Amino acid sequence: MKLYDNPHAPNPRRVRMVLAEKGLEYEKESLDLGAGDNLKPEFAAVNPYSKVPVLELPDGLCLSETPAICRFIDEAYPEPELYGTTAKERAIIDMWDHRMESMLLYPALFAFQHITGFFKDRMTPVEDFGQESVRNFLKALPVLETQLTNNEWIAGGRFSIADITAVCAIDFIRIVKVRIGDEYPNIQRWYAAMKRRPSYSA
Amino acid sequence: MKLYDNPHAPNPRRVRMVLAEKGLEYEKESLDLGAGDNLKPEFAAVNPYSKVPVLELPDGLCLSETPAICRFIDEAYPEPELYGTTAKERAIIDMWDHRMESMLLYPALFAFQHITGFFKDRMTPVEDFGQESVRNFLKALPVLETQLTNNEWIAGGRFSIADITAVCAIDFIRIVKVRIGDEYPNIQRWYAAMKRRPSYSA
Repeated sequence: MKLYDNPHAPNPRRVRMVLAEKGLEYEKESLDLGAGDNLKPEFAAVNPYSKVPVLELPDGLCLSETPAICRFIDEAYPEPELYGTTAKERAIIDMWDHRMESMLLYPALFAFQHITGFFKDRMTPVEDFGQESVRNFLKALPVLETQLTNNEWIAGGRFSIADITAVCAIDFIRIVKVRIGDEYPNIQRWYAAMKRRPSYSA
Repeated sequence: MKLYDNPHAPNPRRVRMVLAEKGLEYEKESLDLGAGDNLKPEFAAVNPYSKVPVLELPDGLCLSETPAICRFIDEAYPEPELYGTTAKERAIIDMWDHRMESMLLYPALFAFQHITGFFKDRMTPVEDFGQESVRNFLKALPVLETQLTNNEWIAGGRFSIADITAVCAIDFIRIVKVRIGDEYPNIQRWYAAMKRRPSYSA
């Protein structure tokens, strides 16, 4: 397997963390997104939507979109299970993973893109929307704090893909100087546990 | 099963279309989002993030986040299969479904929210970002046209959840007067096929 990667972006990190949790070896090609490596015509054959990560399988199939990649890896290499075992457990993990993606990760990406203007050669940054995205990120935290008051991990009693998605969002938004405050002791407790996992530094 | 629903929003429609494809009966409670029904304290017990759709299962479990709900229904009621049968087919459908969600449906939602200001009592609409969202939506169409030139349905040879997500996005963005132009004959052909399915009017 080969991962088209970027060391700074949160979505490739989600995939690297899944691969690390599974203990899998893989080839890695790092793309310089600022220089537009992903916009070159040769990359369009890998992903016509020009995004990383992409996981190229041994038969040549290039799989993109982080949740599709992570779920595929989990199905092909079930140990340790990151998406649950029963239909209901899977649904609850799915629910929390999608919450963490849409309520933390996307706002973190939008905050970065619209506040820093890093990709202003290929999009129109709107600073006010960047600030609104920071507010959206912060608004999602109280419910997460309650969830982590009642559960060890985000989707319940077991570590799951939702924890990976959340930590990638929380670390990424530091780029615009947003941090989890002391008013969230259970998110802090969970975050410390995430940092202790070897996959954290993948 | 009981669906917490809204007749105008695209995400509840995705769930209704899945339920219609499966031929399932269910109870429906419609929330008036403009009036803030979803922000009332009693709804926080159903979904602490105050969003529809939510599917309440017979045992009382309230499942939210559209992709989690749709996948759960598909697993519980496999006929007709909307998520694929082999691991690779599932991965490709997942990939296209997530593309349609992040590149068509979210831009359509953002365009609505930020251009019309419909929810300005609970968010800060940023008109320029609404217009950028329209551009993002339109930018995603050429790759979709190519995909539908080579395939009958969005994820390949069979109808899938990705078709449902895409049609809900394409219909919703009409609210800000964006339509699929004649330069996309294969998207038009696919769209006509979608309109012929009984689930289209669910």
